[in-house]
Amino acid sequence: MKLASLKSEHPDGTLVIVSHDQARCVDVTDIAPTMQFALDNWASCSEALKAKYKSLNDGLEPNSSTFTSQSTYAPLPRSWQWLDGSLFLNHGHLMQQAFHLDPIADADKYPLVYQGAGDSFLGAKDDIVVADLKHGIDFEGEFGVIVDAIPMGSSAEYALSKIRLVVLLNDISYRALGPREMKTGFGFVQAKGPTAFAPIALTPDELGEHWQNGRVCLPLQVKRNGQIFGEPLGQEMHFGFHELIAHVAQTRPIKAGTVFGSGTVSNADPAKGQACISELRAKEMIQHGAPQTPFMQQDEVVSFNVIDPNGNSLFGVIEQRVTLSLASENI
Amino acid sequence: MKLASLKSEHPDGTLVIVSHDQARCVDVTDIAPTMQFALDNWASCSEALKAKYKSLNDGLEPNSSTFTSQSTYAPLPRSWQWLDGSLFLNHGHLMQQAFHLDPIADADKYPLVYQGAGDSFLGAKDDIVVADLKHGIDFEGEFGVIVDAIPMGSSAEYALSKIRLVVLLNDISYRALGPREMKTGFGFVQAKGPTAFAPIALTPDELGEHWQNGRVCLPLQVKRNGQIFGEPLGQEMHFGFHELIAHVAQTRPIKAGTVFGSGTVSNADPAKGQACISELRAKEMIQHGAPQTPFMQQDEVVSFNVIDPNGNSLFGVIEQRVTLSLASENI
Repeated sequence: MKLASLKSEHPDGTLVIVSHDQARCVDVTDIAPTMQFALDNWASCSEALKAKYKSLNDGLEPNSSTFTSQSTYAPLPRSWQWLDGSLFLNHGHLMQQAFHLDPIADADKYPLVYQGAGDSFLGAKDDIVVADLKHGIDFEGEFGVIVDAIPMGSSAEYALSKIRLVVLLNDISYRALGPREMKTGFGFVQAKGPTAFAPIALTPDELGEHWQNGRVCLPLQVKRNGQIFGEPLGQEMHFGFHELIAHVAQTRPIKAGTVFGSGTVSNADPAKGQACISELRAKEMIQHGAPQTPFMQQDEVVSFNVIDPNGNSLFGVIEQRVTLSLASENI
Repeated sequence: MKLASLKSEHPDGTLVIVSHDQARCVDVTDIAPTMQFALDNWASCSEALKAKYKSLNDGLEPNSSTFTSQSTYAPLPRSWQWLDGSLFLNHGHLMQQAFHLDPIADADKYPLVYQGAGDSFLGAKDDIVVADLKHGIDFEGEFGVIVDAIPMGSSAEYALSKIRLVVLLNDISYRALGPREMKTGFGFVQAKGPTAFAPIALTPDELGEHWQNGRVCLPLQVKRNGQIFGEPLGQEMHFGFHELIAHVAQTRPIKAGTVFGSGTVSNADPAKGQACISELRAKEMIQHGAPQTPFMQQDEVVSFNVIDPNGNSLFGVIEQRVTLSLASENI
């Protein structure tokens, strides 16, 4: 099943089911007015939503309309809790080598995770509006999952059964501000921008054999200004999403609609490229002693896409342009 | 003006105005169904809420009822964004001295802040339900503020004008889990429990002369099992709330209903005691080479109260008991 939230007057948007070929969508607000409502009431909503998906694919929804990713919010436009991991250890290894950092103890045993701002996610085509181009504007192509309620103390296996949706996201990062915040030990606040999501959320079954052990086993295609920047594979994720969730749930109950991110997708094979600029800069530092690739500047465009072996874009495309915030008056 | 959210079938509760003497309250859901709604529509709601407060205090609200803090959620029961500072530098200095840590660079220049879980705040009398008593169960008595929308790039002065409510809170912390997470640089996730709030939120004018330069200039009384644990003064906060907000707003717009915390209230004068156990343990380590005071155990009770010079409790009392989570089946 494919779901999206169309932009509307309300910050939570209008929930729609999107056809398998992504050409059509149908309003399902009679079943669930918002994605958060659907997640809060998954047991009672999901069968009706699935039936709608089937009839839409069968051409039996006369009230369906053309689906366009320009008009979408994030599938879940805002979340009460957004927790982003760093589950591809290759990324951390490169950072440590490039910046001569001490390795993070037990990074292969405890998933790294920070809590981010979920109050206003960006849609797939929304601009990246930054305060200052000197902040080191970077993207991070990531997979994510959105879960049902999960009690404190749940096992990874139980958590796996409560993953309702899989998503594709861009964790916008301000690299010039990260090191100071990391050194404090308090985590990223200034160093993270709003997170953007591909138009469509998928139920795990929609991924078929490409959803394995809490991982999306497909390449994440990243382009910068239309040129391939990387196509790293999701299967190299050291922890599955279920292990990240169980880690967090050790001391807190998880509410329905909580979003978990994988961290930037990163592969050991250099031929796979990378899903963020800082990783390429790290490789350059290791090879040449200094970074060569600049961070994003005004009007640069980054895009993310996940294409299955049949050539289908599974989540729709994220395509975002960098632009400088216009200063408001009297603030 | 004093506001509270009564427990109800809905996670956002029922918004009420509380009388100045905290004896009575009146349902104001005809003006604003929830606190989040009131904050989202402050310009259009606040005058009507103030009028209700006046008529309630004048004994002119026949539909008012007895106010009891047992029946309250947090004033804002959940928030899209919860950012907790560490604005009392004395606390950090003691921690560094006790644990022989390197001082955090520029801690007097940039406010320390982490992003916490705002998806389900606790009411003033809710139990502290923990996964494991060996996690080093601690409390942190803090002041907090809840703001209106604040654009990215706003000044501290502008932010000060957008502080709508002042609150009293307990930032529950698991000290045994903190050091590992701080070392990663990603901040606290496992190491923080749900945050609990005193029953009543005050508009800043309600504090009169005790609200100065973005600080609550009153002692925060902390009791452990009924015995005074500390009465540190709010005025020693190194940064005002407005400075914390402007720091965060440098790279992100702030939505109405965002909650900011002061960090544990801490004074240089040892006679003032402390608002968290770890600070007393740090003092013991510095004096005796080892901590002596244990963290919270099953059925211990912590309470917080702010009493003005006339003897009035301003926010109502937080009083929470520690209890161990009962393991659920099949998770």
